[in-house]
Amino acid sequence: MITEELRVDTGGRSLTDLTEALVSFCAGRGDGLVHAFCPHATAALVLIEVGAGSDCDLAVWLEEHLPRDDRYRHRHGSVGHGADHLLPALLGAGVSIPVRDGRPQLGTWQSLVLIDTNRENNRRRILLSFLSG
Amino acid sequence: MITEELRVDTGGRSLTDLTEALVSFCAGRGDGLVHAFCPHATAALVLIEVGAGSDCDLAVWLEEHLPRDDRYRHRHGSVGHGADHLLPALLGAGVSIPVRDGRPQLGTWQSLVLIDTNRENNRRRILLSFLSG
Amino acid sequence: MITEELRVDTGGRSLTDLTEALVSFCAGRGDGLVHAFCPHATAALVLIEVGAGSDCDLAVWLEEHLPRDDRYRHRHGSVGHGADHLLPALLGAGVSIPVRDGRPQLGTWQSLVLIDTNRENNRRRILLSFLSG
Repeated sequence: MITEELRVDTGGRSLTDLTEALVSFCAGRGDGLVHAFCPHATAALVLIEVGAGSDCDLAVWLEEHLPRDDRYRHRHGSVGHGADHLLPALLGAGVSIPVRDGRPQLGTWQSLVLIDTNRENNRRRILLSFLSG
Repeated sequence: MITEELRVDTGGRSLTDLTEALVSFCAGRGDGLVHAFCPHATAALVLIEVGAGSDCDLAVWLEEHLPRDDRYRHRHGSVGHGADHLLPALLGAGVSIPVRDGRPQLGTWQSLVLIDTNRENNRRRILLSFLSG
Repeated sequence: MITEELRVDTGGRSLTDLTEALVSFCAGRGDGLVHAFCPHATAALVLIEVGAGSDCDLAVWLEEHLPRDDRYRHRHGSVGHGADHLLPALLGAGVSIPVRDGRPQLGTWQSLVLIDTNRENNRRRILLSFLSG
């Protein structure tokens, strides 16, 4: 298995599109399974369409269902940071995608997106692993 | 890695049980990991019991938490289609299951189910991949 | 692929930390992908921080969003058991993590946790699988 570490600067954005990095990582590797993993307790990885409003819709959904207020038992960081800690449990910290001829078999409108509502840390690591067929 | 494409006609149903197809795909393949992947931006794959009400309960939960109204920024398709686009982020687009002696190690009440609330497209592709042990 | 079955007694707790068992299972196995799978229709596996309040926050979130009342079509078990059946669909029944030199590459605050709100069955099986690189 080949694993590479991707350094991501979210620039404070809640959503960062990692599809290009995923495609580059798989190129030339033939058939297999690619696994993207977010080794952080306050961020998640999902597949979602970007650029047609759904990324904003997800952000709104998260604000409604994980409000950034003082309801959380978790008290580190700024008010609402407890919400960030529920993200990986609800959305997941990893995604697996089959690869054929070095191309991840994403649907036309699927993008690999890092969800990171934690404004206090812009630097994230993502682990991309390839299991050969 | 062996990958097969499954063609699914949902018949407009929100839930389609794919367990039989999964079991058939794994038969005779020995030990390994099977991965089911939905290459669509508006459908999800989950493990859930079917036939005892929980499939209906999930449909109700989704209607409540992802209402089909005009709140979404995503505006393609009919009213409420924006909800479909949040499904894969919330429920996940893929499922991995260990396989022993060609049998996926699902619990007694676990079924592999395609969740597809998009009434405008009945035809779906599912990618089933087997990684040998 | 090596698969081991872990027997877990939840002691009636909603959250059971399985990180130590995961780390032990991976030790000495080199590089690869570890997959943890919960073969039950009423429990889930997630990555979340434990010991700083977020585990309680998740329990509260689940009680709010999956109330234990008589709203469910699923009628087996005690009142509210229908909620348990939605857990694996919402949170997921499996988690994959890259492994380097026998160590799962979890972030500092990530723990592998079994979520099991079903009070009527304390005994659970978890399948841990290792795919060599």
